[in-house]
Amino acid sequence: MKNRFITFEGIDGSGKSTQIQMLYEYLSEKNEKVLLIREPGTTSIGEKIREILTDKKNNAMSYMTEALLFMSSRAQLVHEIIIPALKENTIVICDRFIDSSVVYQGIGRGLGKEFIENLNQAVTCNIMPDITFFLDIKPEDVWLRKIGLEESDRLEAESLDFHSKIYNAYKMLASKNKNRIVTIDANNTPEVMHQNIIDAINTRF
Amino acid sequence: MKNRFITFEGIDGSGKSTQIQMLYEYLSEKNEKVLLIREPGTTSIGEKIREILTDKKNNAMSYMTEALLFMSSRAQLVHEIIIPALKENTIVICDRFIDSSVVYQGIGRGLGKEFIENLNQAVTCNIMPDITFFLDIKPEDVWLRKIGLEESDRLEAESLDFHSKIYNAYKMLASKNKNRIVTIDANNTPEVMHQNIIDAINTRF
Repeated sequence: MKNRFITFEGIDGSGKSTQIQMLYEYLSEKNEKVLLIREPGTTSIGEKIREILTDKKNNAMSYMTEALLFMSSRAQLVHEIIIPALKENTIVICDRFIDSSVVYQGIGRGLGKEFIENLNQAVTCNIMPDITFFLDIKPEDVWLRKIGLEESDRLEAESLDFHSKIYNAYKMLASKNKNRIVTIDANNTPEVMHQNIIDAINTRF
Repeated sequence: MKNRFITFEGIDGSGKSTQIQMLYEYLSEKNEKVLLIREPGTTSIGEKIREILTDKKNNAMSYMTEALLFMSSRAQLVHEIIIPALKENTIVICDRFIDSSVVYQGIGRGLGKEFIENLNQAVTCNIMPDITFFLDIKPEDVWLRKIGLEESDRLEAESLDFHSKIYNAYKMLASKNKNRIVTIDANNTPEVMHQNIIDAINTRF
């Protein structure tokens, strides 16, 4: 049986949570076993790592520390959750995965795309998403409703320049990985985006 | 001015804490600025990582997660503490550093010596210890007083086989890095070991 491992990527505010929830309901209604997971976190170890990453008090965190904490959480998630779930033929939907590390830490923080890709390969045991949805919307279009909100965490509270760099990195990755990454126009309504996503899923699996 | 970065290595129970304290007092009496640090931990971020690593509840932790959490803590320690301290001509004494990752995760856990060495290089910004003391005592000679103690943590509660593998890995590293790693016979009394350590320090610096 073919693995069905689906990841969602995009800048903050691109609508990932809404689309993941809609896809989860759609697949569940078809009586599929579906597991929703997120990065960083999901496992109890990963959620503790997430607390360190998102705590605004940790503003002295080096970029390398940040990158390696994401990788630690990912290593645990692959080992404890993803591999066992795929073996049981569960559909796994993950909110952010390897591409987030490439764009945020590799390109955004300047640690290097190749360095991050090598780490991704080591921590995932070569488990790759079967399909990745990149929700494509420019940061200036989502900026006003995210920035300055009290609940924004350490990672979200970055400048528009940074988010533009992330957006461009996602566009580059999507163009280089057309077989895996499906670009969804996130300027559309949630309903249109959802239809585009299930069309792609039904074509792929 | 030459950097003076001193690390201590050895299996649990080899007497690192005692020797570090004795060396700290010796150097302080000579009016040197000395900073004692430990791995994992020391920084506030690192101490939170240490909590995850040592919590016995986290027994589902994968070896890769463990290795990367140590690396995360090290990256933060180098960035936030070691580099600034060495720039101020402070003597830095660190309880465990790069060699611990090589022997425990690279060899003990089987993640590979080269994989860990490449990560060490990336996270340390090529800051190497100027001198490393390997406190040389066989695990069977320290075993009885460590194992089964209620206060032993997740990492210490390993089998004698594992600790023997670690010990042999330290011996191998010491023989391959004779310029940096000074082997101290830890079957001697603390006073004799201390004298051997300060003799080596005074020769080196």
